[in-house]
Amino acid sequence: MSPKPKTPSVPQARPCQERPLANLLCPRSVAVIGASRRRGQLGGEIFHNMLSNGFTGAVYPVHPKAASVQGVRAYASIREVPDAVDLAVIVVPKGAVAGVVDECVSAGVKGIVVISAGFAEVGEAGRILQGEVLARVRSAGMRMIGPNCLGVINTNPAVGLNATFAPAWPPPGNVAFCSQSGAVGVAILDFAKQLGIGISQFVSIGNKADVSGNDLLEHWEDDPGTRVILLYLESFGNPRKFVEIARRVSRKKPILIVKSGRTAAGARAASSHTGALAGLDVAADALLGQAGVIRVGTIQELFDAAILLSNQPPAAGNRVAILTNAGGPGIMAADACESNGLVLPQLSPGTEAALREFLPKEASTRNPVDMVAGATPEFYEKALGLLLRDENIDSVISLFVPPLITAPLEVAQAVRRGVVGTKKPVLTCFMGSHGVPQALDALREGRIPSYTFPESAAMALARAVRYGKWLARPEARVPALENISAERAREAFRRGPSSEGKGRWLRPDEVRGVLDAYGLRSPRTLFASSEQGAVEAAREIGFPVALKLVSDTITHKSDVGGVVLGLEHADSVGDAFRAIASRLAVLGKRDEMDGVMIQEMAGGGLEAFVGVTQDPLYGPLIGFGIGGVHVEVWKDVVFRVHPLTDLDAREMLEQIRGARLLDGYRGSPAADREALADALLRVSCMVGELPEIRELDINPLMAMPPGRGVIAVDARIRVCR
Amino acid sequence: MSPKPKTPSVPQARPCQERPLANLLCPRSVAVIGASRRRGQLGGEIFHNMLSNGFTGAVYPVHPKAASVQGVRAYASIREVPDAVDLAVIVVPKGAVAGVVDECVSAGVKGIVVISAGFAEVGEAGRILQGEVLARVRSAGMRMIGPNCLGVINTNPAVGLNATFAPAWPPPGNVAFCSQSGAVGVAILDFAKQLGIGISQFVSIGNKADVSGNDLLEHWEDDPGTRVILLYLESFGNPRKFVEIARRVSRKKPILIVKSGRTAAGARAASSHTGALAGLDVAADALLGQAGVIRVGTIQELFDAAILLSNQPPAAGNRVAILTNAGGPGIMAADACESNGLVLPQLSPGTEAALREFLPKEASTRNPVDMVAGATPEFYEKALGLLLRDENIDSVISLFVPPLITAPLEVAQAVRRGVVGTKKPVLTCFMGSHGVPQALDALREGRIPSYTFPESAAMALARAVRYGKWLARPEARVPALENISAERAREAFRRGPSSEGKGRWLRPDEVRGVLDAYGLRSPRTLFASSEQGAVEAAREIGFPVALKLVSDTITHKSDVGGVVLGLEHADSVGDAFRAIASRLAVLGKRDEMDGVMIQEMAGGGLEAFVGVTQDPLYGPLIGFGIGGVHVEVWKDVVFRVHPLTDLDAREMLEQIRGARLLDGYRGSPAADREALADALLRVSCMVGELPEIRELDINPLMAMPPGRGVIAVDARIRVCR
Repeated sequence: MSPKPKTPSVPQARPCQERPLANLLCPRSVAVIGASRRRGQLGGEIFHNMLSNGFTGAVYPVHPKAASVQGVRAYASIREVPDAVDLAVIVVPKGAVAGVVDECVSAGVKGIVVISAGFAEVGEAGRILQGEVLARVRSAGMRMIGPNCLGVINTNPAVGLNATFAPAWPPPGNVAFCSQSGAVGVAILDFAKQLGIGISQFVSIGNKADVSGNDLLEHWEDDPGTRVILLYLESFGNPRKFVEIARRVSRKKPILIVKSGRTAAGARAASSHTGALAGLDVAADALLGQAGVIRVGTIQELFDAAILLSNQPPAAGNRVAILTNAGGPGIMAADACESNGLVLPQLSPGTEAALREFLPKEASTRNPVDMVAGATPEFYEKALGLLLRDENIDSVISLFVPPLITAPLEVAQAVRRGVVGTKKPVLTCFMGSHGVPQALDALREGRIPSYTFPESAAMALARAVRYGKWLARPEARVPALENISAERAREAFRRGPSSEGKGRWLRPDEVRGVLDAYGLRSPRTLFASSEQGAVEAAREIGFPVALKLVSDTITHKSDVGGVVLGLEHADSVGDAFRAIASRLAVLGKRDEMDGVMIQEMAGGGLEAFVGVTQDPLYGPLIGFGIGGVHVEVWKDVVFRVHPLTDLDAREMLEQIRGARLLDGYRGSPAADREALADALLRVSCMVGELPEIRELDINPLMAMPPGRGVIAVDARIRVCR
Repeated sequence: MSPKPKTPSVPQARPCQERPLANLLCPRSVAVIGASRRRGQLGGEIFHNMLSNGFTGAVYPVHPKAASVQGVRAYASIREVPDAVDLAVIVVPKGAVAGVVDECVSAGVKGIVVISAGFAEVGEAGRILQGEVLARVRSAGMRMIGPNCLGVINTNPAVGLNATFAPAWPPPGNVAFCSQSGAVGVAILDFAKQLGIGISQFVSIGNKADVSGNDLLEHWEDDPGTRVILLYLESFGNPRKFVEIARRVSRKKPILIVKSGRTAAGARAASSHTGALAGLDVAADALLGQAGVIRVGTIQELFDAAILLSNQPPAAGNRVAILTNAGGPGIMAADACESNGLVLPQLSPGTEAALREFLPKEASTRNPVDMVAGATPEFYEKALGLLLRDENIDSVISLFVPPLITAPLEVAQAVRRGVVGTKKPVLTCFMGSHGVPQALDALREGRIPSYTFPESAAMALARAVRYGKWLARPEARVPALENISAERAREAFRRGPSSEGKGRWLRPDEVRGVLDAYGLRSPRTLFASSEQGAVEAAREIGFPVALKLVSDTITHKSDVGGVVLGLEHADSVGDAFRAIASRLAVLGKRDEMDGVMIQEMAGGGLEAFVGVTQDPLYGPLIGFGIGGVHVEVWKDVVFRVHPLTDLDAREMLEQIRGARLLDGYRGSPAADREALADALLRVSCMVGELPEIRELDINPLMAMPPGRGVIAVDARIRVCR
């Protein structure tokens, strides 16, 4: 049956017309299928909300029997609705959903929100049911939100859509919110209403069978009514796609996220260093950081940061001035700023002098500026203006503790006057001002964020500064590299034993072949299976040499004394060979000794570490740190998800805690940073082109002094094909 | 003039009678000197508050001219008040305070609260004025709170004292609060009222000229109405006294603190490793930790933890069960628990089975237990009971997101029934429940703490668990040590050059003498001033030896190549001597070379680090870490303030991040932990007995395998006398 031609009931222009999700988020007409006469039931609450929040279109209750629902003429089926319906909100028992969707398709409905639960979230039977619904939606070219969701809200007065069963309707504003959890969504809407945080659109994506967080990011990317995007997610459906979209959207507007739920990474095989080092949530952290997404720990922090970013200009840097009328809160704010990476610089002499002109002599004109308890509204106005014009200052936190005389409202109005014309962010904290809502209202009208305690202001500012820093980064790219051959790398291990199932660790010669194919230099190495062979190999390479056990089965060679460094004479080479052999004999593992490698000693450099592990969800995760025992004990490793950009590689070198070791330290030489960054990019390229590499450790990657490159002294690679 | 004999106006028993601060905190009669007829003035607000909050005694306004103040008969001076006055609240101009105090003394007033500002907080003139007031108070044997404070509150219905000018009167309860900042105090009272946190007593100590936080700790120690003590402090007047009192009081009731303001430690000379490592606030952290005081970052966290500790029993361990009716918040809570050091163990099989009996099949009976959206109040009651009886579980966080059908109030009542009889703490989070205050009231009546978001609950619980762990620690003591002689140590450097002013670094032989006098072993060492002498010394000690530059002026010897290790032959000793001499000649520092030490090589151990720096406020600060470059790059050092107990020393070894290196790691031997702990105690004893030691670094302190002790391979000591 083909859709009936119908005329749109409300012809007015919609704010998101012509956008892919327009029918879901800016519908002109809505049917509530399963609308109920009874409040307290989902279908009753949703219909009530649709009627109560200024929806500018028409809403049609669909009810099998009732002639009217909550005073509105009802229809027995969507197909009986006489006008075109942009959006159907479906709140019928799960078993009836597929049939209702069929009717929607035949009625020409353009989008659906499925509130009903009992789908993929409850197991296999529900997953099948959800698949059936999704297939109908896809084949009809519709879009669907849910199932198992709370619904959608659009506070734009031109739309006024509240298709949720949540009790709270937030004030209109420019913050868009996507919640994967309906339960958290209810709490979020309530919290937004309490705090007076203006919401542009709210979407509970539920099981996200069709519309996902990624779709919403793209929708909000160009939504003029949205300035900040908040996400509460428990999982990424397609993390690589998320990064691609988020990285682009983050350049236009800040994305803040609470990402709860640990990844499946805990199950990751931890036989390599890198695998064991990469904590449960390292991949998600890396991914979000690379995409410029601001990750916060709690919903409270999410809102704290959102209030700032949605109302104030970005901060050009991390230099904060604090203005207060009470010493204690000033100190609290200063502490909180510094522990969040912000700095309180000295004010310029001109500012201090100008402050001294009108502040009482008990006041402190240094940062934090303490105007003491008698501070008048005029002091606030003047001081704010001076601080905001100080070239040493990027932002101001203004604190106010109401003494008896000064009225908070007057101070709030003075603050509004004080910030006129500035392009620097200003945050306020009117402590103990729950009792003076007018003051907070005045600040809100002036788009000046206010916090209950100074620490929240400092933390929010720190996040905004970090976002500003990310925005200011130069454009990064994944550079093209020379001397690379995936084919030659595969050739290196193609003839080895099978590597199905859990795969296998490559033999040392195979490892060197793979590294060589990606332009990564190994020390000169010869294999020997006998004591005599070892001595001859050492003579050929030239002393000193290292002697290393070769075994397919013994992974941590130093645990069995299988690595002997700095052998200076033929005799010591022979001794070392025999020592390993007899040690293994004692352990009953003599058979596992395939022989030894005799290796050029690459000394005189800094031992770095490069590793790759596979995250089941996020793909290759690349780590860098200072090598040797420190990697394991101090866990001083930074991670990025594949692929690395040139900027990622450089930042990784800077971001380890031991970064200054790369500059040379107490007599040890500096490391060739260029070559280290290049090696990271080559490893990134390698694991992208060779998905059969499941794990890789280069430890140590000996970083020679600048200009002299890096040498992969020891490396392990596990392949699986 | 001697005090007039007067009869007490209200003879009833006071809750804190016979306690030192009784007249200040539980007065039977109060005079407000400077009481004003005008609201909006301090003296008007205080008098209004005194009248409005159920004060059980009599309050007398003292006003120079008015016949009555706010309807109460007024007196022109305190001496005209006909009855005995326990407490005078003074709110007159600063210049008049001393005179008023004189009158109070002659009128037999027993305690005073000075609200007036303009004393030590405004500089030298104010400090003098404050000294004059204090002298009068002391010589009269009175006690004084303030000056420059907000006042005092006692909500006990037998007292009903509100001698503050704060607008908010908190609900009565069992949390005592001391605030150094009046401004923060106003905010705190307002916040407590908002959150419904019951306060027993509140004291704003202002400039704490007389009564300090220490006095209040002792007062609240035995106050039956106080179960939790909260402190907001910006400085410790007498930190050692604070530790002594807090350590004792913490055993009886938890002390929570927000300590803002950095110490003067930034000015500390940072020429030693230890000085540079000890961050700005390390000493305060160490001090509070040693005293069992729970330090939190923000006022919000302070209240979050206080609500738990004031209402629920202590947790026996860190094993948490989470109960929820929504997946998302359950995951958030689990994440927050784990990132705060709590664990979510498996439930015992019996619990899981019992849960399965009544929960729907979509529910998860694993921890976190997700009862899904249909969960009834009965489910909550039953499940809570089961979880609380599970022996794998020490505490429960119960989450509830109101769906439409289930009423929060009923769930709250069910939770109250579910916890009956348990001795384990229960926390709740009724998300989005701002709209259902009755539910929160019901929980409050049941003494069950409720949080807006699960993260706050997790963080509060983590703090309570840490406090429980501190309580469970065995009694610690500062052990008596053998082989110690302060006299012999002083002898070692008495004949050296003067060490006034900034003091001087001891010469190596002096250092060895000091260490030896405290039973700390140094490697065998000979001094040589010539190449030939060095060779002879090496022959006497036996190869291999170390050769180290001796210089009074060059502190970091390795920076100038002044440390050469592992010399195996006489020739290499001679070479090394000449190399240092010529290096210094090139640097123009040949004159600064006094000679070299030839030293036994103490190899085969783990290089540890022990250091002492002096905090100007907290005294000697003792640090321990793994030695060498790691101390400086990774800053893996733990600190304690002097004196160390046996438990402190053992804990220090455990608390460094690299602790597992002490157990031997990848072939390197384990360290003699007993000897390391003993060395820490000896160093602690040394710096206690020899206050002239300003700085000390032992780096490395070579820790030999168990049973073989430790050797102070290199050490530096700066003395100042």
